Amino acid sequence: MATAAQDPGRAEPAAALAALEGRFRDRLQLGQAIREQHGAIEGMVGGGIPDAVLFAASTEDVAAAVALCAQHGLPVIAHGAGSSLEGQLAAVHGGLSIDLTQMNRVLEINQGDLDVRVEAGVTREALNEELRDQGLFFPLDPGANATLGGMAATRASGTNAVRYGTMREVTLGLTVVTATGEIIRTGTRARKSAAGYDLTRLFVGSEGTLGIITELSLRVFGIPEEIASAVVQFDELAPAVEAVMLMMQLGLPLARIELLDEVQMGACIAFSDLTEFRAAPTLFIEFHGSPAAVAEQVETVRSMVDDFGGGDLMFATQTEDRNRLWKARHNAWFAAKSLRPGAEAFATDACVPISRLAEAVAAAKTEADAAGLVAPLVGHVGDGNFHMLLLFDPASPEEEKRAHALSDAIARIAIGLGGTATGEHGIGLHKLSTMETEHGAGSLKVMAQIKQALDPLGILNPGKTVPSP
Amino acid sequence: MATAAQDPGRAEPAAALAALEGRFRDRLQLGQAIREQHGAIEGMVGGGIPDAVLFAASTEDVAAAVALCAQHGLPVIAHGAGSSLEGQLAAVHGGLSIDLTQMNRVLEINQGDLDVRVEAGVTREALNEELRDQGLFFPLDPGANATLGGMAATRASGTNAVRYGTMREVTLGLTVVTATGEIIRTGTRARKSAAGYDLTRLFVGSEGTLGIITELSLRVFGIPEEIASAVVQFDELAPAVEAVMLMMQLGLPLARIELLDEVQMGACIAFSDLTEFRAAPTLFIEFHGSPAAVAEQVETVRSMVDDFGGGDLMFATQTEDRNRLWKARHNAWFAAKSLRPGAEAFATDACVPISRLAEAVAAAKTEADAAGLVAPLVGHVGDGNFHMLLLFDPASPEEEKRAHALSDAIARIAIGLGGTATGEHGIGLHKLSTMETEHGAGSLKVMAQIKQALDPLGILNPGKTVPSP
Repeated sequence: MATAAQDPGRAEPAAALAALEGRFRDRLQLGQAIREQHGAIEGMVGGGIPDAVLFAASTEDVAAAVALCAQHGLPVIAHGAGSSLEGQLAAVHGGLSIDLTQMNRVLEINQGDLDVRVEAGVTREALNEELRDQGLFFPLDPGANATLGGMAATRASGTNAVRYGTMREVTLGLTVVTATGEIIRTGTRARKSAAGYDLTRLFVGSEGTLGIITELSLRVFGIPEEIASAVVQFDELAPAVEAVMLMMQLGLPLARIELLDEVQMGACIAFSDLTEFRAAPTLFIEFHGSPAAVAEQVETVRSMVDDFGGGDLMFATQTEDRNRLWKARHNAWFAAKSLRPGAEAFATDACVPISRLAEAVAAAKTEADAAGLVAPLVGHVGDGNFHMLLLFDPASPEEEKRAHALSDAIARIAIGLGGTATGEHGIGLHKLSTMETEHGAGSLKVMAQIKQALDPLGILNPGKTVPSP
Repeated sequence: MATAAQDPGRAEPAAALAALEGRFRDRLQLGQAIREQHGAIEGMVGGGIPDAVLFAASTEDVAAAVALCAQHGLPVIAHGAGSSLEGQLAAVHGGLSIDLTQMNRVLEINQGDLDVRVEAGVTREALNEELRDQGLFFPLDPGANATLGGMAATRASGTNAVRYGTMREVTLGLTVVTATGEIIRTGTRARKSAAGYDLTRLFVGSEGTLGIITELSLRVFGIPEEIASAVVQFDELAPAVEAVMLMMQLGLPLARIELLDEVQMGACIAFSDLTEFRAAPTLFIEFHGSPAAVAEQVETVRSMVDDFGGGDLMFATQTEDRNRLWKARHNAWFAAKSLRPGAEAFATDACVPISRLAEAVAAAKTEADAAGLVAPLVGHVGDGNFHMLLLFDPASPEEEKRAHALSDAIARIAIGLGGTATGEHGIGLHKLSTMETEHGAGSLKVMAQIKQALDPLGILNPGKTVPSP
């Protein structure tokens, strides 16, 4: 228990761990490597290492583990694929990491209702593999092959959200283990309900601080009759953004519309061998619908792109060409990191009303230039959401500090324009300092009251999401 | 204070009323008629009369009034157009009714972002009048000209929700007065956010029991290039329902799809002079989109209707013809009541997964027949939501009891099929008994914990939404 001794703020876990080991035997893992892996934070140094990792096999396992932790005051941190970006998984006060990845069964596929029920550890790719034969798909795509439980917990979205919504919209109901280890169910399979408080939406986005999601009912969609992807390049960033703003204002039901700036596009060309393109501001667009609807959308987009001085629409209609393009888009993070070998990186996540997007992007680029950092930009611009990847030398504390200051500045730009510090990555640890600016002290107090009511011992992912009063 | 003396469970309001009168002068109304009007419940006898009615002019008024009520332990009930159906407005423990209808300003219309900010007392029709010049509209249409604050508080929807969502989906943010009289703001104008707990969705549907909504940011939409309405009649109810199920399963983006059974259609024909139709199961359908998209949807619907033995699609493309049809649909309640002059009526509100809709409707009709009540059926069937209007003789307590038993049975049928007791009317007083069946004791406990945390004195619309533990 060396780690416990190093941190005077955390509970002495010995008794809790003994009780957990008695219940779970070798599904409770105490090895240093596995603990470090479960406390690591993608793209960040630091974090916090849990005292143990439990590989849960069922909702009942999670309930029993939380009940034992509640008895001993040991923190509990739910763990999916480990792809969260804001420090959600750091065991800042030690505790038990409950790994849900072995809860990976698709429990029901209701083709007639376009919904599914899954265990929390099912990944979005695994779900899509099971759905494909039935002509269905789950559209949300944050890039990483995240677990669906983790995606709900962080209110994730990614590409496709512009048309299909975020985890807020596609989650119909949840099974949740509460802070006392009780199992509750929220929501129904009906498309709408006016029955009582919306607990489903309360747990979605709560980052494991109010309960642990163990099962989800999710909406799925019919695979569109036609899917077409196009790439279009611009000479300048501003007209590319303005073209997107107009498309959204006209209500075009585009399935994906992604912006890469010239720095990011250059990185992707090199990393993914996209030699047919140039390092210029670029939109990746995907159209879903009937052949007639897709043709109509394409013509509308083409005419708008022309008006804003964009180039030709370059189409990828074959599945493999489309996959190559979207794989390149998904690899943007790795491509960007390759711009500066050895650098660490983290992403900003500003999201603004669409009318303020050009202004937000311009202000963020100006700040990045002033900070002297390499900061490629990529965004789900149909939602007003964009990321800058801030690259810094981990050996230079000064540069890391500059990167954090830039990140904070970009968050505040977004909030100042009526937007949010985080469109989809969540608050975790790293964005706690933006919460009061975004929500105001009054709303934060209400959030703290809810946290206190549902987790009075403070054992559920402590130190995350809502700043301590 | 005669009413207070009659109810030993309620606080003595004299001191609170004196303080309120000192602050608000003649905007505080104590007359019997106005108090009765604010405690009445649409379609139900009984209810509860508030001790006073305050006509609030601003969020600050509401905050000051709630703060005074909190000091004196006086209940507070927010009041909009008074069109709620489940007893949400009954002052069961007396108290102050805060009438928000004078807070009726549209504060912002952001055409570029397709959103608006309004005071809670703006009605949906008033908003649409202000939007029309700008080519925008607010689609949600519960029939009544409800206030937008009331619609958010009850998580209302109505026709058009099948395409545009419910108040849950279209509400971007709120200004809320908490139980202590503090003013908080929730949400942002960005389309999505992963920043902290989803307070917006928590207050939407909370029926004034967690806070009083005084302002709303709402999504609005571009008026579609083309709108077409069609009516199609069937010989039997089941194939009409099955045709709708298939349309929804194929993901057709219909704007409205409403079912009227033969009883309801007969009533509407007589009440609204729709002599071109017959008293048979009928679908009212509305198509929104580009001309090509509408034409494509119409052809798909036509072929499905043919497959299920429906008649010809009868179109109303002119605005006035369309309005006549939808007015007849909106007057279904009055038409149904005219089937039995002198009868009272209330509506069921079952909502089920679309695949169970035919089964739910058939079971509900069987129960109604067994109960021997006149019970016309009308429904937002694209959402799996249908209402039966239960007519009863107010002079017959036995018949009224039978109507309530039937209502309860239909709610339980819906819950048993994976649905909800209420798709859009809310819980209020009348559906409290369904809450445990629908949510389970564990979820109800969490709702009660939230209520206790945000309103420890229990002054916000007491006795509603969440059953007392």
